[in-house]
Amino acid sequence: MQNLQIDAQRLWDTLMETAKFGATPKGGICRLTLTDLDRQVREWFRQRCETLGCTVTVDEVGNMFARRPGKNDKLAPIAMGSHLDTQPTGGKFDGVLGVLGALEAMRTLHETGYETNAPIEIVNWTNEEGSRFAPAMLASGVFAGVFTPAYAYSRIDREGNTFGDELQRIGYQGPEKAGARKFGAMFELHIEQGPILEDEHRMVGIVQGVQGMRWYEVTVTGQEAHTGATPMRLRKNALLGAARVIEAVEQIAQANAPLAVGTVGSMEVRPNSPNVVPGEVFFTVDLRHPEATTLDGMEQTFLQAVEAVTRPLGLDVKLAKIWDQPPVRFDNDCVEAVRHAAADAGFSVRDMVSGAGHDAA
Amino acid sequence: MQNLQIDAQRLWDTLMETAKFGATPKGGICRLTLTDLDRQVREWFRQRCETLGCTVTVDEVGNMFARRPGKNDKLAPIAMGSHLDTQPTGGKFDGVLGVLGALEAMRTLHETGYETNAPIEIVNWTNEEGSRFAPAMLASGVFAGVFTPAYAYSRIDREGNTFGDELQRIGYQGPEKAGARKFGAMFELHIEQGPILEDEHRMVGIVQGVQGMRWYEVTVTGQEAHTGATPMRLRKNALLGAARVIEAVEQIAQANAPLAVGTVGSMEVRPNSPNVVPGEVFFTVDLRHPEATTLDGMEQTFLQAVEAVTRPLGLDVKLAKIWDQPPVRFDNDCVEAVRHAAADAGFSVRDMVSGAGHDAA
Repeated sequence: MQNLQIDAQRLWDTLMETAKFGATPKGGICRLTLTDLDRQVREWFRQRCETLGCTVTVDEVGNMFARRPGKNDKLAPIAMGSHLDTQPTGGKFDGVLGVLGALEAMRTLHETGYETNAPIEIVNWTNEEGSRFAPAMLASGVFAGVFTPAYAYSRIDREGNTFGDELQRIGYQGPEKAGARKFGAMFELHIEQGPILEDEHRMVGIVQGVQGMRWYEVTVTGQEAHTGATPMRLRKNALLGAARVIEAVEQIAQANAPLAVGTVGSMEVRPNSPNVVPGEVFFTVDLRHPEATTLDGMEQTFLQAVEAVTRPLGLDVKLAKIWDQPPVRFDNDCVEAVRHAAADAGFSVRDMVSGAGHDAA
Repeated sequence: MQNLQIDAQRLWDTLMETAKFGATPKGGICRLTLTDLDRQVREWFRQRCETLGCTVTVDEVGNMFARRPGKNDKLAPIAMGSHLDTQPTGGKFDGVLGVLGALEAMRTLHETGYETNAPIEIVNWTNEEGSRFAPAMLASGVFAGVFTPAYAYSRIDREGNTFGDELQRIGYQGPEKAGARKFGAMFELHIEQGPILEDEHRMVGIVQGVQGMRWYEVTVTGQEAHTGATPMRLRKNALLGAARVIEAVEQIAQANAPLAVGTVGSMEVRPNSPNVVPGEVFFTVDLRHPEATTLDGMEQTFLQAVEAVTRPLGLDVKLAKIWDQPPVRFDNDCVEAVRHAAADAGFSVRDMVSGAGHDAA
């Protein structure tokens, strides 16, 4: 059997068309979940799906399902999709490609009159980003039973609006119970959010799963002091402690190469004045690895390093583990289906583990 | 001859009394220069000086001089003083002690009817702190001829007010040309802004001068990248580079112990998100030593270290030297006068170099 071919130009045009909802001057998109811009792109999406004869259903947390019947409509549907919301400084492709790629596939099925055995559904998950309402992957989490709808409704943005109120306001609190429908499989096309494919000149990553992740918030406390008047031996320099932890995190990741990553991405220095020895530094630590046992080892080494680094400097440390996501392995049949389709189409491929979290996980 | 004795309790009460102008809930003072609170404490100070028979003159940049005549009023006056303005989170003593200590000395001279040979003047310098209008030591700088009055007037605070407008508004732009009067000597009593005296259980520091100081602003630029999806070997982590410069600054100061100090006090991480490898880090570097030649060597080592640290990480660096203050040696006769007075009074002393900048410098 020959693969159906999508219309790549049409997919590109569609990406550019929806990029206008929330376009930023620098060429990106700011389309936060449950804003008027989100409503506009949802209406656009609903209308395009209905044009193809799909039935669009919305669940109680705003997830959208555009269904095309199969030969055997009793079969669990094959789902494809991602999210149409973006970060405040989002790009044109993150999430959007997964939904519009699915739309393009649906259009191709429609035009060729191809009948699938099982029904096909395109999904647009609400609030994948979590940048307006934390946490990320909120509504797919409700769908999967990780969160309750009430929890989702109670999430509050910086202006004090709740997820529930905003969902109603834009008219996307649907009647269906989240998670009521069961998928036979779910595929999520996504741009790579890292440089590996480009670095190795491959076209397609065959994603085996999502790596495990541990996040820490660390506060190192020393003693504020005048930079000119305080001799080195009498200092308790919180930033020096933080700098040494940054180095330790780097070494831990390097020691577990090539799959481990470790990062300090966010840091606040207090009082943050050029002539005051920092008395307190807050920072986040992000450790990831596809294997839980290796990740456990990295975490242990990290905790020991924090102690070893800060104690000789006379610093106090507060550590809080704020996220612990176990590694996820995707279904092998689904992974092999992607591999064969890519091979049939003649794309160069590479097995990968997703570094970022996604709705599919 | 026996030393005159001040009234320590009265000095303390005066410190507590003026601390009410701008008192903060945590026990400090927020009395930014040229605010209404500054005007209030200036009025208070003027009135107390006039009660003692002093003549109060204000110069064109708001510096106040309270003069008590000497036996030979043609002699250049002996000045004592500091500043009544504070940082936004200032303490009760920084600067204030220098002015109110001088006031207490003046009260003691007045009550005992002691006649000095030369006139005595108390000085309150405008805007020592520089936290509302940069730079610090602005009006003593005009007095010393380092800055012009026009430069001072043009300084702008965060709300867009100029130094000149605010000086007029509070009624403290005086008629006298700054620097017109010449002092025979100037003494500035100051709390230690470091821990050395307390650490060594000494009462009084005999300050020989102010150490030299070099300030740098450093911007390290790498590449923003997703923490989960970007392998360690493909990163250009600006924060890792900054951490290694922090370590280098520490080592440079340690290598020039005990008098050298080196500090990174202020840092901004961009974009400062837990799941983004930092693409840019801005930070300040503060290097100090009492000897110019040693400070030159420290600076050279620092510049080499920045190169050596950032190049292997693939980072770009922008360096700007924003302050270069040569070491200052105080007049030996003045220093010896302080030493003998402290010895006569039975205080334990220690020779010191001031780590901070002051009006007297």
